[in-house]
Amino acid sequence: MLAALAQVTLLCPTSPEWIRQALERFDEVLIDHAHCEKKAAAHALSMLAAFPDVPGLARAMARLAREEATHLTQVLAILEKRGLTLGRDRGDPYAQGLQAQVRQPQRERLLDRLLVSALIELRSEERLRLLSVNLPDPELRDFYARLADSEDGHGALFLRYARKYAPQEVDARLAMLARVEAGLIESLPIRAGIH
Amino acid sequence: MLAALAQVTLLCPTSPEWIRQALERFDEVLIDHAHCEKKAAAHALSMLAAFPDVPGLARAMARLAREEATHLTQVLAILEKRGLTLGRDRGDPYAQGLQAQVRQPQRERLLDRLLVSALIELRSEERLRLLSVNLPDPELRDFYARLADSEDGHGALFLRYARKYAPQEVDARLAMLARVEAGLIESLPIRAGIH
Repeated sequence: MLAALAQVTLLCPTSPEWIRQALERFDEVLIDHAHCEKKAAAHALSMLAAFPDVPGLARAMARLAREEATHLTQVLAILEKRGLTLGRDRGDPYAQGLQAQVRQPQRERLLDRLLVSALIELRSEERLRLLSVNLPDPELRDFYARLADSEDGHGALFLRYARKYAPQEVDARLAMLARVEAGLIESLPIRAGIH
Repeated sequence: MLAALAQVTLLCPTSPEWIRQALERFDEVLIDHAHCEKKAAAHALSMLAAFPDVPGLARAMARLAREEATHLTQVLAILEKRGLTLGRDRGDPYAQGLQAQVRQPQRERLLDRLLVSALIELRSEERLRLLSVNLPDPELRDFYARLADSEDGHGALFLRYARKYAPQEVDARLAMLARVEAGLIESLPIRAGIH
């Protein structure tokens, strides 16, 4: 199901240059990945805080936060094993560029945050999958394959809530945000990070 | 171990009036409890983001975030079963009063945030324990007993990092913050919430 969703919503594939850099400077990717999992967990909690009355959303976001925090502990364990420390978050111009598209009125904000989250999860899934097939270490390949499967589920979760919440508007808004997403992917400098 | 720690650091017990109100308006306590677990998970993630280079702290905070998110899903399941919705966070004057004591320079900030977190966890543990012995429903009593055991571990975790990080200063600062904590407990209006 994920593969189909990704085809529908991601308008451009990741460039081969990204995977080349990611493999060459994998330690930096790992550190960025830990920060991504931290932000994903914090984001799920903030969705729950901002929209506590959307039926079912609070529990779904709490479960998501738990899962992202679990991934975070796993990535931190790999960092530790390799003698790396987390360090400061360098920020993520890709995610910031997408979040800048979120409209402010409450109703539009929920739809936009769900769709932006879905796109970030789908892009993350695409790249974790690329790591899972290209990393030389079989243990890391397995780890990234498992994580890519999870991100797949997360993208679908956000899209499901978006469809339930605003069935009339979701397709047009998703198409527009997917164009912005592809524009960011194609225009931002490639770096050794998940995005 | 927890009981001893709590005796050392909490300078006043919770008033019997709190448990009376908590039992009478338990639905409100449950909702407040969900918000507390959400804030505890978010707080653990923010500790990790603010102090990424303290050895071992990132992984400890990631594990803590996972545990608090797990509790959050459990409390939300109970809310749902009782037909309650989460609603907006009303804020927590007790925790805010303690957080106002955190000094700003980086070194003092870490020590203070660890100690404030420890005190909040110890107070939460005391009150979850009171719920675990006073609630009429045996299933809820068991649930709160398990949660009180966890909070116990969390208070000890924060104190351990505080001792490791600033062994010379920890006792004086903890004594001072424990006085503030007791002052807040005695002066703030009692309400149907965890704090």
